[in-house]
Amino acid sequence: MQASKIDLLIHCKWIIPIVPENQILENCSLAVDGEKIIGIYPQVEATKRFEATNIEHLNDHIVMPGLVNAHGHAAMSLLRGYADDLALRPWLEDHIWPAESRHLSEEFVTDGTKLAMAEMIASGTTCFADMYFFDDAIAQAVRTAGMRCQIGFTVLDFPTAYGKDADDYIHKGLKLNDKYSGHSQIKIACAPHAPYSVSDSAMQIVSTYANELDMAIHIHCQETAGEVAESVDQYGCRPLERLRNLGLLLPQTQLVHMTQLNSEDIKLVQDHNCHVVHCPESNLKLASGFCPVGQLMDAGINVALGTDGAASNNDLDLFGELRTAAMLAKAVSNDPTTLDAHAALRMATINGAKALGWDEEIGSLEVGKSADMIAIKTDSIPQQPLYNPQSQLVNTNVGHQVSHSWVAGKPLLADSELLTMNEQSLIQSANNWRNKISS
Amino acid sequence: MQASKIDLLIHCKWIIPIVPENQILENCSLAVDGEKIIGIYPQVEATKRFEATNIEHLNDHIVMPGLVNAHGHAAMSLLRGYADDLALRPWLEDHIWPAESRHLSEEFVTDGTKLAMAEMIASGTTCFADMYFFDDAIAQAVRTAGMRCQIGFTVLDFPTAYGKDADDYIHKGLKLNDKYSGHSQIKIACAPHAPYSVSDSAMQIVSTYANELDMAIHIHCQETAGEVAESVDQYGCRPLERLRNLGLLLPQTQLVHMTQLNSEDIKLVQDHNCHVVHCPESNLKLASGFCPVGQLMDAGINVALGTDGAASNNDLDLFGELRTAAMLAKAVSNDPTTLDAHAALRMATINGAKALGWDEEIGSLEVGKSADMIAIKTDSIPQQPLYNPQSQLVNTNVGHQVSHSWVAGKPLLADSELLTMNEQSLIQSANNWRNKISS
Repeated sequence: MQASKIDLLIHCKWIIPIVPENQILENCSLAVDGEKIIGIYPQVEATKRFEATNIEHLNDHIVMPGLVNAHGHAAMSLLRGYADDLALRPWLEDHIWPAESRHLSEEFVTDGTKLAMAEMIASGTTCFADMYFFDDAIAQAVRTAGMRCQIGFTVLDFPTAYGKDADDYIHKGLKLNDKYSGHSQIKIACAPHAPYSVSDSAMQIVSTYANELDMAIHIHCQETAGEVAESVDQYGCRPLERLRNLGLLLPQTQLVHMTQLNSEDIKLVQDHNCHVVHCPESNLKLASGFCPVGQLMDAGINVALGTDGAASNNDLDLFGELRTAAMLAKAVSNDPTTLDAHAALRMATINGAKALGWDEEIGSLEVGKSADMIAIKTDSIPQQPLYNPQSQLVNTNVGHQVSHSWVAGKPLLADSELLTMNEQSLIQSANNWRNKISS
Repeated sequence: MQASKIDLLIHCKWIIPIVPENQILENCSLAVDGEKIIGIYPQVEATKRFEATNIEHLNDHIVMPGLVNAHGHAAMSLLRGYADDLALRPWLEDHIWPAESRHLSEEFVTDGTKLAMAEMIASGTTCFADMYFFDDAIAQAVRTAGMRCQIGFTVLDFPTAYGKDADDYIHKGLKLNDKYSGHSQIKIACAPHAPYSVSDSAMQIVSTYANELDMAIHIHCQETAGEVAESVDQYGCRPLERLRNLGLLLPQTQLVHMTQLNSEDIKLVQDHNCHVVHCPESNLKLASGFCPVGQLMDAGINVALGTDGAASNNDLDLFGELRTAAMLAKAVSNDPTTLDAHAALRMATINGAKALGWDEEIGSLEVGKSADMIAIKTDSIPQQPLYNPQSQLVNTNVGHQVSHSWVAGKPLLADSELLTMNEQSLIQSANNWRNKISS
């Protein structure tokens, strides 16, 4: 047998492909050519089969699909720790919104998105869903970093430095959608901010385009008890029911937060095959409530995971988020078997890929899928002894143990060093923004 | 003015002394001579005042008191990830207890305690409360590592490899208490395992000695709803009431877990000036329930923080634990202002010191107190931008950013390297135990 020439061969201590379920491969190698995974073989066989341009020996590492952070506001990393320990209303109205209204600009979005991506790449995220403003600046930053991103253009009734009203936001978003149509790593979604901040008429326009263009909808929904009560007051129904009536509960709808759910709400989500994006740390920190993850999963609903923005979290470490999700789901369902380690890893990978409509390309290490993958070191004290790699990934603190990252076969992180971004200049830029924002 | 000769001068970007409350000192220096803190001065003044044998320049760092991990079972680090995602009963009865009954020995305790201490030192803990078996082996290990420890000798009705019955455990514990009487870094406490595992007669003996010897009592209490129901069944009252009746609710009593509390329980704890040790990650992971931290603190009760053992957490990173505590307290009280960053830091420092009766010596950086302190780097991407050092310590993932640690002026960690323990031999030993335990 003649060895085939390929681009990359990774020898791994463990591979967790996510699909098939609960499989852990030991001493295997992952073969990549171009942008794709072309095979997984025992190390000895792989060495015979392939002659690779690049070879990585990751003999203390776990290799798995890159994480999918299914909700965030990347640019808000510049407001990390700017205001904490406040009630939601004064937090937003007296701190976050005034800071945004003073500083929101293309430059703010570019710098903040880059800072956030550096943090995400270094902690294992290869794909993220974003929801903010100046979306073309986000897209440019994503291209520079080499990540994969669903950019949700925010739709709001009120003006910002980016748009003047719902029509304006939608117009800009559709233009962006045209621009990135067919791009392999950037997808545009429509992101009406929340039921309480978008009128029925704007929602109807969103519904029309989402249906026509098969565009994903990304929306904050039933995050707080107050939001549900206001909707009942103003519209005579709960937010989810209103979204249903407006034609917004679609199989490509991503409902973010969802901490205030009764059994009819869950039935609605189930009947319409929508996705839920769970953001446990933000929900805890803002005292929003508890998303009933166990019940949602029992109902067959796809639940993905997100960090939310760094202003309400305050980190973008999806491994930390999945640890919180796994622990919290047990306490909330009063059952320590809820969201076991494998289910938690699926939530942060294939479930995120499904929510973003990207599960044909990413979310698992399968032949033919895009080579979006990460490696995690397991050689430090807090990972010892290692009985079960999945448990160690979920239950110990491994975000900072991520050593390698690839998107579509292209390396973004090697030996814990960022390859597509300059760490020192990001830190300098964050420092400059802090001086400007706090002055 | 002639410069005084001292042992150690640390130039710090920030000092958070914890006492006084909410103070953040910038560009100051901490002076240490022998085992004690002798002063905190602006850097320029400190340089004039002192001629130090050792000088540390920590100009990107926060210096604060070493963390106090007020509850754990250090040796169980050897069972980290051995069994997860199981209901409490099968977890204990089919996995943890059988493994312990096969492997519990002096060697297991020595090696497990060392592994745990290495993890704790590297993540900022300088003092911990332990509750396990073979307590003299724990004490020897603590002396080698140079940490500070309250060793609670477990009292149980049933036999283990260490003791045959409650009398035997108590007898061994009292002998140990004599041995370490007057030791500056080791304190012995009496640790009846839990209300459900210790009979009234043994509890009464504990109460007698605790009162006579002014010894602390450390006990798991009201951890699960089942435990409370069983007590009502068997004793006609809730566990806390039974402890009160048996004379065990003392000002030196440390009540661990406390997830199942009604208002009378809280009143009892308040009236008897007992301490609560909150272990949020273990409580979440085992689906034990939610400790009402906000209510306890509103009632003026001293709440300390613990990781519990690595078999139910699964890490011993107290910074991670305090982040979870801060987020969870907000959600449980339905108020995002509960347990703000400073209150969370106090919980992990001075409150722990108070709970262990060590607040005259440690828990804050004050002149005359023991130089038990740590430094945390703030120069990496996930800490940028830095508006507020306290927020960054609590709300970002900083356990692995701890760079320096001292106990009584003696360095245990420098530039993130362990000084009193050998990392590679600990990893090797954990590996050997894994092979033995999983075979």
